[in-house]
Amino acid sequence: MSGNTTGTLFRVTTWGESHGKAIGVVVDGCPPNIPLSESDIQEELNRRRPGLSQASSPRKEEDMIEILSGTFERKTTGTPISMIIKNRDTKSGDYDQIKDLFRPGHGDITYFKKYGIRDYRGGGRASGRETAARVAAGAIAGKVIALEGIEIIAYTRELGGITTEQITLADIDKNNLLCPDMNAVGRMEDKLEEAKKTGDSLGGIVEILVKGCPPGLGEPVFDKIDADLAKALMSIGTVKGVEIGAGFEAARMSGSVCNDPITPEGFETNNAGGILAGITNGDEIVIRVACKPIPSIEKEQQTIDIHGRPATISIKGRHDVCVIPRIIPVCKAMVSIVLADHLLGQKVNCRYST
Amino acid sequence: MSGNTTGTLFRVTTWGESHGKAIGVVVDGCPPNIPLSESDIQEELNRRRPGLSQASSPRKEEDMIEILSGTFERKTTGTPISMIIKNRDTKSGDYDQIKDLFRPGHGDITYFKKYGIRDYRGGGRASGRETAARVAAGAIAGKVIALEGIEIIAYTRELGGITTEQITLADIDKNNLLCPDMNAVGRMEDKLEEAKKTGDSLGGIVEILVKGCPPGLGEPVFDKIDADLAKALMSIGTVKGVEIGAGFEAARMSGSVCNDPITPEGFETNNAGGILAGITNGDEIVIRVACKPIPSIEKEQQTIDIHGRPATISIKGRHDVCVIPRIIPVCKAMVSIVLADHLLGQKVNCRYST
Amino acid sequence: MSGNTTGTLFRVTTWGESHGKAIGVVVDGCPPNIPLSESDIQEELNRRRPGLSQASSPRKEEDMIEILSGTFERKTTGTPISMIIKNRDTKSGDYDQIKDLFRPGHGDITYFKKYGIRDYRGGGRASGRETAARVAAGAIAGKVIALEGIEIIAYTRELGGITTEQITLADIDKNNLLCPDMNAVGRMEDKLEEAKKTGDSLGGIVEILVKGCPPGLGEPVFDKIDADLAKALMSIGTVKGVEIGAGFEAARMSGSVCNDPITPEGFETNNAGGILAGITNGDEIVIRVACKPIPSIEKEQQTIDIHGRPATISIKGRHDVCVIPRIIPVCKAMVSIVLADHLLGQKVNCRYST
Amino acid sequence: MSGNTTGTLFRVTTWGESHGKAIGVVVDGCPPNIPLSESDIQEELNRRRPGLSQASSPRKEEDMIEILSGTFERKTTGTPISMIIKNRDTKSGDYDQIKDLFRPGHGDITYFKKYGIRDYRGGGRASGRETAARVAAGAIAGKVIALEGIEIIAYTRELGGITTEQITLADIDKNNLLCPDMNAVGRMEDKLEEAKKTGDSLGGIVEILVKGCPPGLGEPVFDKIDADLAKALMSIGTVKGVEIGAGFEAARMSGSVCNDPITPEGFETNNAGGILAGITNGDEIVIRVACKPIPSIEKEQQTIDIHGRPATISIKGRHDVCVIPRIIPVCKAMVSIVLADHLLGQKVNCRYST
Repeated sequence: MSGNTTGTLFRVTTWGESHGKAIGVVVDGCPPNIPLSESDIQEELNRRRPGLSQASSPRKEEDMIEILSGTFERKTTGTPISMIIKNRDTKSGDYDQIKDLFRPGHGDITYFKKYGIRDYRGGGRASGRETAARVAAGAIAGKVIALEGIEIIAYTRELGGITTEQITLADIDKNNLLCPDMNAVGRMEDKLEEAKKTGDSLGGIVEILVKGCPPGLGEPVFDKIDADLAKALMSIGTVKGVEIGAGFEAARMSGSVCNDPITPEGFETNNAGGILAGITNGDEIVIRVACKPIPSIEKEQQTIDIHGRPATISIKGRHDVCVIPRIIPVCKAMVSIVLADHLLGQKVNCRYST
Repeated sequence: MSGNTTGTLFRVTTWGESHGKAIGVVVDGCPPNIPLSESDIQEELNRRRPGLSQASSPRKEEDMIEILSGTFERKTTGTPISMIIKNRDTKSGDYDQIKDLFRPGHGDITYFKKYGIRDYRGGGRASGRETAARVAAGAIAGKVIALEGIEIIAYTRELGGITTEQITLADIDKNNLLCPDMNAVGRMEDKLEEAKKTGDSLGGIVEILVKGCPPGLGEPVFDKIDADLAKALMSIGTVKGVEIGAGFEAARMSGSVCNDPITPEGFETNNAGGILAGITNGDEIVIRVACKPIPSIEKEQQTIDIHGRPATISIKGRHDVCVIPRIIPVCKAMVSIVLADHLLGQKVNCRYST
Repeated sequence: MSGNTTGTLFRVTTWGESHGKAIGVVVDGCPPNIPLSESDIQEELNRRRPGLSQASSPRKEEDMIEILSGTFERKTTGTPISMIIKNRDTKSGDYDQIKDLFRPGHGDITYFKKYGIRDYRGGGRASGRETAARVAAGAIAGKVIALEGIEIIAYTRELGGITTEQITLADIDKNNLLCPDMNAVGRMEDKLEEAKKTGDSLGGIVEILVKGCPPGLGEPVFDKIDADLAKALMSIGTVKGVEIGAGFEAARMSGSVCNDPITPEGFETNNAGGILAGITNGDEIVIRVACKPIPSIEKEQQTIDIHGRPATISIKGRHDVCVIPRIIPVCKAMVSIVLADHLLGQKVNCRYST
Repeated sequence: MSGNTTGTLFRVTTWGESHGKAIGVVVDGCPPNIPLSESDIQEELNRRRPGLSQASSPRKEEDMIEILSGTFERKTTGTPISMIIKNRDTKSGDYDQIKDLFRPGHGDITYFKKYGIRDYRGGGRASGRETAARVAAGAIAGKVIALEGIEIIAYTRELGGITTEQITLADIDKNNLLCPDMNAVGRMEDKLEEAKKTGDSLGGIVEILVKGCPPGLGEPVFDKIDADLAKALMSIGTVKGVEIGAGFEAARMSGSVCNDPITPEGFETNNAGGILAGITNGDEIVIRVACKPIPSIEKEQQTIDIHGRPATISIKGRHDVCVIPRIIPVCKAMVSIVLADHLLGQKVNCRYST
């Protein structure tokens, strides 16, 4: 069953394996006449590259995006936009030693059980590298929603158990961890250093804010916008939880506290996280996603080989210590894609609803 | 944009408003030759009816399911199964007083902004009543997955801030709150009583376990099974958060703790919650969903009317105090639907993967 | 695999068997605020009822449509519109004699081979009765497209080999065969009379014109509007061929004859049938569909039973002699549904294309 | 609205413009473990290249396919297969003279009206060149269905009005026009020569036979296999008509002639063309498609420019005289894609139908 396409009107299909010839994405349904060039996309991709912070590996990986179709004279034409990123400098040989082993916390064992065959080099299709294609598609979605004044902000809410006490959006770009609380940055860096030394890894929580989103986006009852956001974000390999607005904390509130009072000027609080009954209410959309620690660690772990025999494994190489902050542009991309899809969907209704 | 259908192979379409003539559902893609009669579905529906616990309103609402198509001599035929539940005894008049007001925490305001028209009676399409149709579809999905030995268990993990300390599955059916910790039941009931007295409401957390699920279900990269589960559960109006396995707690673990060691006998721990890289790994699937408190409360709240003028509102009537436990069969239904869809999807691969 | 839903934005799901409790349809994605009542739909359904011409059986079948959801105060609300037609007076007993036989030209044998089970009463799901649900959905689609000035005209182009020499649209409603050539009507009626006497049946060709369709509808490359029209029409059980514009005759033309010259006032000819490269060009859309003779005939035919043994069969009962003219509203309905879907789709582009 | 993806389980997405950097296709849902290498696909592509017959232009265009993902050690892995064909030697300058003119019979005018922007070079996305991507995807689909013993044969049934009198399948590969009647080949060649001399073009009819197709493929009621075949074939730019089995001729038959008698050994005739009620019946599938003459002709034609002013146009260059025989591998590809999709779909049912 095909599963590599998402979206109804703004439709994204990604392809490619970590150590194949290339990875890429086709964006179908992007409206025409939107200014678009490779540099627009490259800029977003660069935010995902390794080596930007202590959390990521020092390896150099310069993903260069190439647009192969769908634009003419630097504008979109309404036809599918195909983009490609060539793989290079991939050391497949590194993976020979683990080609018969299932790495704990990875998809090695499930891909093998599902398909009876797998490209074991670097995780193949299950590699985090696939998310670069999402970022490229998200950059286009981002241009579509920016036309309507929608802006997405995302940052590190928590890392290795260190949480942010106060959110100062202006601080996000002042540190490599994209953390809005400068007081927390140092402690997060210490945690990362410690994990690196012990051959271990860390997880964290990303918070995403959508500003300027008009009311009316989302299609009840199954394609609610929070449902689609949850799917899009949970489809990122590292994500184990998604919450909207007050999220899990809402479960502990009483109705009189959780309900957001409505005034002529807007909502007084935002426990709903900008979404009511699956439709945006015009307030800020607030989402948090839980990212598990990176499963590739140097510490020795217990596992089995493809014949079911017990084995131990220690994963060498230049792996990241934490998906944060590199996962942040991926989260933004997925949110952009969902919003672009629903924004186009609501254009249909607009004609009839006023 | 249509949004009332979910699933690719096992496809569910619901319809109907709270105070219309009826609600219903069409299940398309159910395999043929599966024994099915109305009593199979009625049984599941009865678990959702009000009056079973202190959390739900005392009103009598006997939803009677009727199968209109898709079966012949009590077996499915492979053609669409249409089911209907007639609405009755609905007091539309009750809603006249609030027909121009937006109830806080409800979809009143977003439906109005999206469509420019809304059926204000009892929440219309956004009513929790719609979930009865999901339960009916889920009952059929449940039969499909039960054929392969898959069983779903769901229970109250937390209610009004009272959490379960230990999980004794055998206790679930021994109390009306479907709580697996008999020690917590009393305190939960007290909380409910207190909320009822003050005209307020409560939220809670439902935990869902899937036992006996074969490995290989799920379609990377976008239609991962955890992504589809997150969407399905987040599409329930009351849900504000979904987590898989260790969930948000995984964000605080190190990789060496979070990774589940693999042994010839299976996984040693289950922080993954039975899913790796979006594909089931054969272990138990573990999901938790956060349910917000019911927004309809008697306590006076601040709001506006459809003309934007400030107003206050106090919602009278026989409303539930907490969606738990009535939401539990709905959660099970959504999980069943997702699993049935992916189970059928994997049948395609099975032919080629061994 | 589910196959009972069509359309992306204007989405139609039909259900029901010939001799089950009812048949019906859910229309999802219909825009809000469109005036709609049961009489609008009943009117279209009445055009499909038997007994209107010599071609159809004299049995009385008063299909009464009931709208169960999706409207409020006689306007659509944007939520799914569920409609039901109860089956009555169905003589299931009539079918006992043929329950183990496969009727030639019918789906009896293929449903049995596909599903391993079938509702043999009156063709079950494969019955022409299913098309009543399409007509109901088409009536709603018709209202959507009429808002933009689109009008669909359909008529008998050929019946039992008798062709129409000249097309006088005003004559269509002047005869029961919906034939635009009064000179041909008499000969068609004779043909029908003759077929009836010999226990045989006839086929014919329906021509459909779409007037007032704006340019720009259709989504290349796979969802071209002619591709979607062909699928929609070929999905009617009786249809064995579909052609657009000059159709099969175009295969015999030279390019200089077939190409429609373009002038400031429009196209000089219309061999394209109003569609170029899968997109409407603003000219009249012209479609013809070939309908095979009704397979249920009294004449004795050779067949086998479900055990593979040879048998003969003579189908008694009040069957139509020809699907024309009763199929005409069905053709119109399918064209309306496709146009409504693409019209809504183009609303998305409109915002960006000028 | 996105329209460049087709199929549910075997899903094909094409992209690319005639004179862009490349064209390509992503095939998602191909089962794992199917042997596949570039030469398998190149072989099919070569059948579509120009210069093979008098009907096509003498230009050299060596389309080289490259597989970028989805295979490992020359087997499919179940992940998306991305393929690319680079464009080269494209003389964009040739198109400067017509960049402001709408070529009659082409999509120039409709793309412009739909999107408000178009890549005028060589037809852009509407170019016949896009079908090379379909042929590549069809080659993979062909491998999937060949595993079950399904074989597709296609040939020239008619060209420029010259029809084949008798069908000798063995003769198809003995002439460059892929005509099964050696007696007709000479007259077809004369017709082509004559058209070339006068700067005109020709159309024709392709007939497609599917041998060895098992019964049970197709999903009523909308996704009938004949409906999906009609859509797939009508989505080829040149096609103006599709018929199944007796097709339009069935409209002139009586039921007693059209119905195919059933015997223990199979069907006595095949007017149904192998499909009953939208499901394959195990007999040979028979399809005919009408191809219009190529619209690019040297003869002067009347048209308008993008400002609506009258103009004349004469299209120079190395254009084909007739799409036949180059369209034949495209037709086969589309039929293969539809069959692969439905074959996988029926694998789901198989588990339950016996």
